[in-house]
Amino acid sequence: MNHFTKFENKELSQKLIDLALAYKKEPRKDQHKGDGKRIGCIFLNPSLRTRVSTQLAASNLGVEPIVLNMDKEGWALEMREGEIMNKGTVEHIKDAAAVLGSYFDILAIRAFPSLTNREEDINDFVFGQFVRYSGKPVISLESAIRHPLQSLADQITIQEYCKKNENPKVVLTWAPHIKAIPHAVANSFAEWTLGMGHSLTITHPEGYELDPLFTKGATIETNQSKALEDADFVYVKNWSSFNDYGKILSTDPSWMLTEQSLSKAPHAKVMHCLPVRRNLELSDEILDGDRALVQKQAENRIYAAQSVISHFLDS
Amino acid sequence: MNHFTKFENKELSQKLIDLALAYKKEPRKDQHKGDGKRIGCIFLNPSLRTRVSTQLAASNLGVEPIVLNMDKEGWALEMREGEIMNKGTVEHIKDAAAVLGSYFDILAIRAFPSLTNREEDINDFVFGQFVRYSGKPVISLESAIRHPLQSLADQITIQEYCKKNENPKVVLTWAPHIKAIPHAVANSFAEWTLGMGHSLTITHPEGYELDPLFTKGATIETNQSKALEDADFVYVKNWSSFNDYGKILSTDPSWMLTEQSLSKAPHAKVMHCLPVRRNLELSDEILDGDRALVQKQAENRIYAAQSVISHFLDS
Amino acid sequence: MNHFTKFENKELSQKLIDLALAYKKEPRKDQHKGDGKRIGCIFLNPSLRTRVSTQLAASNLGVEPIVLNMDKEGWALEMREGEIMNKGTVEHIKDAAAVLGSYFDILAIRAFPSLTNREEDINDFVFGQFVRYSGKPVISLESAIRHPLQSLADQITIQEYCKKNENPKVVLTWAPHIKAIPHAVANSFAEWTLGMGHSLTITHPEGYELDPLFTKGATIETNQSKALEDADFVYVKNWSSFNDYGKILSTDPSWMLTEQSLSKAPHAKVMHCLPVRRNLELSDEILDGDRALVQKQAENRIYAAQSVISHFLDS
Repeated sequence: MNHFTKFENKELSQKLIDLALAYKKEPRKDQHKGDGKRIGCIFLNPSLRTRVSTQLAASNLGVEPIVLNMDKEGWALEMREGEIMNKGTVEHIKDAAAVLGSYFDILAIRAFPSLTNREEDINDFVFGQFVRYSGKPVISLESAIRHPLQSLADQITIQEYCKKNENPKVVLTWAPHIKAIPHAVANSFAEWTLGMGHSLTITHPEGYELDPLFTKGATIETNQSKALEDADFVYVKNWSSFNDYGKILSTDPSWMLTEQSLSKAPHAKVMHCLPVRRNLELSDEILDGDRALVQKQAENRIYAAQSVISHFLDS
Repeated sequence: MNHFTKFENKELSQKLIDLALAYKKEPRKDQHKGDGKRIGCIFLNPSLRTRVSTQLAASNLGVEPIVLNMDKEGWALEMREGEIMNKGTVEHIKDAAAVLGSYFDILAIRAFPSLTNREEDINDFVFGQFVRYSGKPVISLESAIRHPLQSLADQITIQEYCKKNENPKVVLTWAPHIKAIPHAVANSFAEWTLGMGHSLTITHPEGYELDPLFTKGATIETNQSKALEDADFVYVKNWSSFNDYGKILSTDPSWMLTEQSLSKAPHAKVMHCLPVRRNLELSDEILDGDRALVQKQAENRIYAAQSVISHFLDS
Repeated sequence: MNHFTKFENKELSQKLIDLALAYKKEPRKDQHKGDGKRIGCIFLNPSLRTRVSTQLAASNLGVEPIVLNMDKEGWALEMREGEIMNKGTVEHIKDAAAVLGSYFDILAIRAFPSLTNREEDINDFVFGQFVRYSGKPVISLESAIRHPLQSLADQITIQEYCKKNENPKVVLTWAPHIKAIPHAVANSFAEWTLGMGHSLTITHPEGYELDPLFTKGATIETNQSKALEDADFVYVKNWSSFNDYGKILSTDPSWMLTEQSLSKAPHAKVMHCLPVRRNLELSDEILDGDRALVQKQAENRIYAAQSVISHFLDS
């Protein structure tokens, strides 16, 4: 693994999960492993959990984290080859990424999709340009199409709450939202859940099919009630249309997950990557009740990041 | 003390003052006391002194500070219970505070008042929601109604410059300003000065009465000249009207503190929390002269914060 | 040297270059030299390389860096003496600089020129006010008229690539740009190159003469082709007019540096401080080819800053 950008294989993922759980028990057990190393955390988009959890993860390993909010502290980067830079962009990604690569041992980058240029987003163009030109291991802090640290934290959480149930039924359900939301969390959750060998049912209104690249092997069921029956883990998430790219096709409130929605899934635990819009995506009753694992997922973000950084320190 | 949000009692405050003065002599004397601990400093409003002094204070104790400018780096938080979040707010305080609580050992939060919703401000609603949901000790970095770290630094400064004068006359005088300014610094200064047993005179134009919750026991005198006679410490501060909530009722320049204003207070030292608007609130001649303690107060912010953080490390 | 703001003399500069190269070989050789010390890095303007390289430099020496983006996290500072502060400025530089001076052991400050008030810019007014009132050693992170850390990094790079050529021909060439750009990098490069005893040719369209304060001793040649003949080092940079202050007099694309421009300088290495506008100032073919030293310069920024901070730790 040269970079951490996606699900690689079950064996490696299981290793990362196990290491994360070991760090959760004893966060500082490798506190000098990264002495003298630095990670540059570069945000082209806002962040709370991802930024802080990555800083804490690095610090637990003795790695010095430096955060760059390029969207606020820096300037507009040119991503395209061969451009005559006589407009708004101030620096080419080639030059900026190479400099950052020379300043840090590991880079971590967040680059959201445009949701307007499907072709570029599918190819993870902006994120890919950083990887291409930085010359150092790159950890994705969410790219246009994937959010692997979130997915690793999600799988850690599933493993923690799944001890007695070896073949959990995992359901990913679309939820309403008022904004056009990226596909990255949903894509990665499907990719990792399937990759770990779990059975996955995805439910969403028609027109909200995800990129088949990530969902191959999952059961697609447009009837939410039916999809949720006997679920063990229900992952709630909005995303905009992939086929009618970036569009909001529905805000149907009946898709909000409530206790009523789970009447036939008495043991279901409910997951969400946060930030969550209460009473739009998920009801207060669920978020404030015993089913909710959202705070556990958020806490596991620290150990997911710590496990991945630790892995790169070994290479 | 579960949180540091206000004056608690004279004994504890004296203990914090004495510890602060010990740290001022030897800033690193407890430099490993907080090893492995983290403080999350969350700003919903801008800061210079408060942010840096808290970072230095934490670092002096071995505590790792992480700063979050939520107003710039984060997103709008929903503060109200039960809202359907289909408008501008992206995350509920319940969820954000709980995550931050799980990431840090101590939280420190700045949340200014609206100055438009008196009821919510009086109840310190926003700050209170953080305290309610974070599950960790919270240090106020200025809330809607109090600024206790500033007041602790002010009392440290008064103690330093008051050695020969056991019963100093302390005066809090309103000063002109062009913006509607919160009551927090004035409230807290009154609360702490009275709590420490000092005699306090408050002077302001009519209509600028502060919340009696904080000023009970002080002498109110609307004639500034009379109030300043024989003063030992004069604290200069603007605030907007409390009764006609958030309004500017006067910008009368005769209330600016000058050498002339202090003609009958030859020994008076002059204090201000900074930032100060020169020649509007306070004259250059005073700020650049020997009476001014404003730089001492600013420096004492470090040791005030260090004393409070140290206190929480003991619990 | 009380502050690091400009070229002082050849002996000191050579010492700083040599120390920087020693740090480049062994970045952590003085890793405890600055234990317990803090540097406050104050940005009134955006930064990427300068901010990160200074943080890394400080950290290599055990010095704790704290970054303040005053342009974004702080508030507007009043720079003028005696002003009645009843407008947009919130704090006077006198007060803010003195507080920062009391919080840090070393300050580092970036303050760009207005490009509208020539008199103030020439006198480095804003930067000078910080120096005047901070009471601590100040390192320039680029002021209105100089960028000495960049120039030190540039001289380090020239020394590295100049081993066989004791008297290199150095050329500073103006390049087109679409924005009005400060003179600081060009001024400082001239000042340091001449100060180190190198021969310097400066080429630019008519009307782009730099302040003679910095260029005295250089050959001025308005024919770019002629200037570039047999050059060993070509420094490419745009600047706005100095005489017709802050104006853009030309965007003539024939001044962009290309391989064609260097047809009579086969061994020329090409330098730029970054960020560079590709295919406007410099062609892709040069930036992506073997002549380009731009990444080396950027990396040397770390060791330039480390050398200077180390120097102040000795005093």
